[in-house]
Amino acid sequence: MTLAPIYLDNNATTRVFPEVVQEMVPFYTEQFGNASSIHAFGEEVGGALRQARRSLQALIGAEFDHEIIFTSGGTESNNTAIRSALAANPKRTEFITSKVEHPAILSLADWLEKHEGVTVHRIPVDNEGRLDIDAYRAALGPKTALVSFMWANNETGTIFPVDGLAELAHQAGALFHTDAVQAVGKVQIDLKATEIDMLSLSSHKLHGPKGLGALYVRKGTRFRPLLRGGHQERGRRGGTENAPAIIGLGKAAEMTLATMEQDLPRIVALRDRLEAGIVSQVSHCFVTGDRRDRLPNTTTIAFEYIEGEAILMMLNRQGIAASSGSACTSGSLEPSHVLRAMDIPFTAAHGAIRFSLSRETTEAEVDRVIAAVPAIIDQLREMSPFWSSDGGKAQFNPEYA
Amino acid sequence: MTLAPIYLDNNATTRVFPEVVQEMVPFYTEQFGNASSIHAFGEEVGGALRQARRSLQALIGAEFDHEIIFTSGGTESNNTAIRSALAANPKRTEFITSKVEHPAILSLADWLEKHEGVTVHRIPVDNEGRLDIDAYRAALGPKTALVSFMWANNETGTIFPVDGLAELAHQAGALFHTDAVQAVGKVQIDLKATEIDMLSLSSHKLHGPKGLGALYVRKGTRFRPLLRGGHQERGRRGGTENAPAIIGLGKAAEMTLATMEQDLPRIVALRDRLEAGIVSQVSHCFVTGDRRDRLPNTTTIAFEYIEGEAILMMLNRQGIAASSGSACTSGSLEPSHVLRAMDIPFTAAHGAIRFSLSRETTEAEVDRVIAAVPAIIDQLREMSPFWSSDGGKAQFNPEYA
Ligand SMILES: Cc1ncc(COP(=O)(O)O)c(C=O)c1O
Ligand SMILES: Cc1ncc(COP(=O)(O)O)c(C=O)c1O
Repeated sequence: MTLAPIYLDNNATTRVFPEVVQEMVPFYTEQFGNASSIHAFGEEVGGALRQARRSLQALIGAEFDHEIIFTSGGTESNNTAIRSALAANPKRTEFITSKVEHPAILSLADWLEKHEGVTVHRIPVDNEGRLDIDAYRAALGPKTALVSFMWANNETGTIFPVDGLAELAHQAGALFHTDAVQAVGKVQIDLKATEIDMLSLSSHKLHGPKGLGALYVRKGTRFRPLLRGGHQERGRRGGTENAPAIIGLGKAAEMTLATMEQDLPRIVALRDRLEAGIVSQVSHCFVTGDRRDRLPNTTTIAFEYIEGEAILMMLNRQGIAASSGSACTSGSLEPSHVLRAMDIPFTAAHGAIRFSLSRETTEAEVDRVIAAVPAIIDQLREMSPFWSSDGGKAQFNPEYA
Repeated sequence: MTLAPIYLDNNATTRVFPEVVQEMVPFYTEQFGNASSIHAFGEEVGGALRQARRSLQALIGAEFDHEIIFTSGGTESNNTAIRSALAANPKRTEFITSKVEHPAILSLADWLEKHEGVTVHRIPVDNEGRLDIDAYRAALGPKTALVSFMWANNETGTIFPVDGLAELAHQAGALFHTDAVQAVGKVQIDLKATEIDMLSLSSHKLHGPKGLGALYVRKGTRFRPLLRGGHQERGRRGGTENAPAIIGLGKAAEMTLATMEQDLPRIVALRDRLEAGIVSQVSHCFVTGDRRDRLPNTTTIAFEYIEGEAILMMLNRQGIAASSGSACTSGSLEPSHVLRAMDIPFTAAHGAIRFSLSRETTEAEVDRVIAAVPAIIDQLREMSPFWSSDGGKAQFNPEYA
């Protein structure tokens, strides 16, 4: 008997809810016409798009539905926000971000610094991944065009206090953007109660289809389109609307919001159970990130003196999907830039495994993972020079202490 | 009895082939994992993506499959190509294009001219929509970074001789890009036999899903990403791969290529039948565009002295979907920039209707349209001050001749 596989890699991407797919399909084959066309093949599209926009608006607490611009994903939203803020404020040439952002921010920052005359400040974090607020205050100035801090970290789940960070940016006359790709759907968000000017999100992280994202741009914020073309999205993003995907994201947003209050505490409880179950049984491992303010679904556990890729492969053999580092950088042998920025020792960062849950995760699945992990770690440590075997159970070799 | 509606607006967007949707769906709900992940939820994704890339490669005759970069659509491909060429060749600051390009080219050109110091040459066309080659030659020079001419016009179907135009660009040391969004799937394309450096295409114009496109970049062409992020698409376009849509486009490409040889002559014959059937029955109307070199599926007929929007509405009542101007500019009352560039008189340009067929179009459908149009035109002309009614049949009022 093979057991059903367990998916604990929801920060990489999520299963699209079947209800979402069901909502999308008719817009591929029946109501496939353009929203702007006036004929039978597209007459339902306009209304469905408006509805989807309102569902997403509700999920993020935007004041107006036209504050949402649909894009092709988190990466496009991030690139658009940064380039827009710089282009719209040409007298300000500095950009503040953190050392632990996603590559969709950091690689653009590197390019802008090297080739477009932008001064970039990369604010450090402490060893729990918390932002150095003093360094941030010191970097802010009259030249700051934009600040971009992620709402929640994709690797550790650490949450930045974006409300307050946005207020500080405004005190310096700078715009504030947040990459909320990992936060939307996992924390309560009420944008109208904040000073955040722009927010990025990505559909496939909340059980919507891939290839779609959104950029929230607060009414009144100066904006420059990145993709120029037709009049779609009020002239702020050209290209034929991806109607089926937008409608799919709308449905995912609606479903997420409807059950969020029950789901989040349940997910936290499962995550904590998983974490405690592993940490209590395995020596020389620790949870990374901010223990007080973390995403409910995420735990990254660093298993010292072994390789994350090896752990993943053995988990995989038992049908358990997790990740080491972020998917975007996997394939490289460098430990993740996030764990490095937190000063996690190499010997631990190399053995970091991220388990990311979703509302589909069950207690039985968590218990299977708790049962599987200690033996895997033991087995790998048996082969490690840092360990000595003692009656079939690996023990840290005191020579290395 | 109501008749089934007829879709002749395939240049705006196409019905997704049911086989394509069928191919896509499992990648939303079963094989939904990231291609780069090493677990059961994504193990088939990598292979399916490679297969899709090869199917598209075959359709456009690219020499290498890695010359294809998947994007979010024609607009992103166009924006990426233009910005890349300018960024990669900073010593050249001029851009040549035509007056009849899609807004995804022209509105970026306007912006670059006004705000980024780029000199733009917009080459005119004659009254059949053919490019003024002398003006093009005269515009080319040592400062030309990029030439971008569309392969086929979305409104009239006029085909530009892109092979030769690319050679001229290379003689001046410039890069050559073509917006082939309307050409791919409708004309035979063999890129390896041309000097074209970059080509844009859009999935939803060839019965694939919306929200996906591709940019072909010939091996060896200097390239600068527009969307910076992870390592996807060999570092040339960040963002989680839109696997279901890519796989859908692959299937659409495969299906298109498999039957192209039979489909194209059949579509031309239907289009010619439609055109002849209408023109022979309706006075004061004419076909626009290049009569010798046009897309097989497109005819735009200008009905003089009446409003295209009114014609569309009456067609729509009979279940016939067509378009006036391009969907991107519909909603505005300006006649299309394409017909204006061709010096089509306003009184005719306002009454232009585009019928765009697909391989799904049947002879019975065409015959229903031929039967419907003359009465609609007559009815509208009855109400027009330019016309006098004569026994129920409108005749042009000789006062206006
Ligand atoms: C010639 C041409 N170029 C570009 C586009 C833009 O493609 P998309 O809407 O997929 O971005 C279109 C279609 O709208 C087109 O007809
Ligand atoms: C924090 C964060 N930002 C941005 C992205 C990029 O989103 P996408 O892959 O949809 O472009 C991701 C996911 O990969 C992410 O985790």
